[in-house]
Amino acid sequence: MSPEGPVLVVGTGLLGASIGLSLRRAGVDVALTDLSEENLRIATGLGAGNLPVAGTRPRLVVVAVPPDHLATEIVRALEDHDGIVTDVGSVKAGPLAAVRSRVEPTSLTRYVGSHPMAGSERSGPFAASAALFDGRPWAVAPHPDASPEAVDAVTALARACGATPVILAPEEHDEAVARISHLPHLLAALAAGRLTDAPRSHLSLSGQGLRDVTRVAAGDPRLWQQIVAANTRALTGLLRDVRTDLDTLLGALEGGDRSAVGDILDRGVLGTSVIPGKHGGPAVAETPVYVAVPDHPGELARLLADAGEIGVNIEDLRIDHDPERPVGLVELFVAADAVDHLLASLADRGWTSHR
Amino acid sequence: MSPEGPVLVVGTGLLGASIGLSLRRAGVDVALTDLSEENLRIATGLGAGNLPVAGTRPRLVVVAVPPDHLATEIVRALEDHDGIVTDVGSVKAGPLAAVRSRVEPTSLTRYVGSHPMAGSERSGPFAASAALFDGRPWAVAPHPDASPEAVDAVTALARACGATPVILAPEEHDEAVARISHLPHLLAALAAGRLTDAPRSHLSLSGQGLRDVTRVAAGDPRLWQQIVAANTRALTGLLRDVRTDLDTLLGALEGGDRSAVGDILDRGVLGTSVIPGKHGGPAVAETPVYVAVPDHPGELARLLADAGEIGVNIEDLRIDHDPERPVGLVELFVAADAVDHLLASLADRGWTSHR
Repeated sequence: MSPEGPVLVVGTGLLGASIGLSLRRAGVDVALTDLSEENLRIATGLGAGNLPVAGTRPRLVVVAVPPDHLATEIVRALEDHDGIVTDVGSVKAGPLAAVRSRVEPTSLTRYVGSHPMAGSERSGPFAASAALFDGRPWAVAPHPDASPEAVDAVTALARACGATPVILAPEEHDEAVARISHLPHLLAALAAGRLTDAPRSHLSLSGQGLRDVTRVAAGDPRLWQQIVAANTRALTGLLRDVRTDLDTLLGALEGGDRSAVGDILDRGVLGTSVIPGKHGGPAVAETPVYVAVPDHPGELARLLADAGEIGVNIEDLRIDHDPERPVGLVELFVAADAVDHLLASLADRGWTSHR
Repeated sequence: MSPEGPVLVVGTGLLGASIGLSLRRAGVDVALTDLSEENLRIATGLGAGNLPVAGTRPRLVVVAVPPDHLATEIVRALEDHDGIVTDVGSVKAGPLAAVRSRVEPTSLTRYVGSHPMAGSERSGPFAASAALFDGRPWAVAPHPDASPEAVDAVTALARACGATPVILAPEEHDEAVARISHLPHLLAALAAGRLTDAPRSHLSLSGQGLRDVTRVAAGDPRLWQQIVAANTRALTGLLRDVRTDLDTLLGALEGGDRSAVGDILDRGVLGTSVIPGKHGGPAVAETPVYVAVPDHPGELARLLADAGEIGVNIEDLRIDHDPERPVGLVELFVAADAVDHLLASLADRGWTSHR
């Protein structure tokens, strides 16, 4: 399943260094390069790979540089080497077009872009890990002229890193991430941005809902600036649709047209239901159970140990912090048919809980 | 600390029935009424209170009806009884103005609105719980003519239900919830609404960020329709600001003006940092640690038990589901200075984890 080495990773930030660590874990030879000597020293020191040995021909080159430098480095990799070339940038169509205009058609067959869906709120090789991609989707985005060998090699790379490959054409990938990642990020940033004017007393009413909606907006703004700039075409269409929705909403509120407001809310409810759930299946009906948990080390563990002994699988869990007292309210998400049993059994063990 | 009974609760949905249960827990006499005989039967059956006894004069009336019926029921309560009256609606200024126009000034002194910040994604007395308000903020919104006794009684109600009272003028309350709850809800609904057009293959790239941004949009659309309609004035100003931001963003993307895009992203980052953290203090610097956890009952408990033995307090926790394999990726949020110790200790105990 592992791609054939040696693999050359160009760029040793979070993604490049993590790919190196993942491949080393799978027993693949990895060479690393980076313009930053410091990053390169850290990444090699962490065991993500070695410095390139003159005369070695990489079978696969992985370009892991910031969005602004992708096309240049992909072209350089195709010119300098005769192996397969991929990149791990967040946007695929623009760099492909730039590469297509600058290399021979025979070279282009060796290039297939890809995009691991791993978090971008951290950066640098110090944050790297062999486990970063475990269980994450990894988009593989072949263009029509890509060779089957190139597609296979990049798919094998994703699997070797512990990820789940998802094949999408480059334009489709860009539309997909505009909708499921870039647009939500921008709307979260707009919601969060409106908090900067708020008096502290207003913010004291904040709950978990606000934290959830705005969390991603804390991501590195310099990286996101490059990402959204590179995906302008797919994003602007969606942003215009949202602006139309917003105008509809404003008009409906001002005109007292409740059914138009209801339509937008209904559509939101429908949207939350189409996000795939656990294990890629349709979203499972999960019911929250609320439990009061003292805020000391070990108390959450005691709760989870009790839930384990009760035999109920916790599908998800969130902690809603109390603004004043040393008690956390923990939301356990469990299968709907397990709720009654869990509540009764928790009560037997002295927990305060409710549905 | 408990309000003096007897307390009459008008409306036995989720909030009314939960208030009854909370007050009964605190030893307060509670009478219940509801237009729905079924809800009333369920709520009394659950022990949330009794049917009213003729001739009993309630010291406090709690109006817990849908937003559209608030003013009517508050006025009726002030006319029918001589005790203190409060309500638990999501919006405060509009109902107050309606009540003011319909009752004698001497009656108005007995009314103080309030708003417990407890989740609205469930409804009905079957979902009620004595613990619903434990650790939640509960806004108390006195108007200038309210008597000190009325303010004290409503504050005592919030505390008796286990909540933390937050005093805000009615207009301030409405501005606060427009910003920290209603606007984020609508933007989440717009983000989620854009998913309904997406091909399934695009949605397969979904990650935890999308789930977080859109989660609240699953809330009951009929209730939210009433809430946003009742808070139109505060909301439309914010929505217009967002529309201006959106125009700026679209113009910046289309014109290639990266610094304007960066300004909006920077403001979002700042906004996430002003949301109060645990125990009402400023947001604590918490660092995520990622751990791969087999998806079996008891495995999460084993991880938390290990973390407890290691002596690190888990500030927050989220579970990122694997699309294909029976492994969950768990994000533990811990104090930044505890990360190295936690990672090393987890590795000693055989866990695959990374920062």
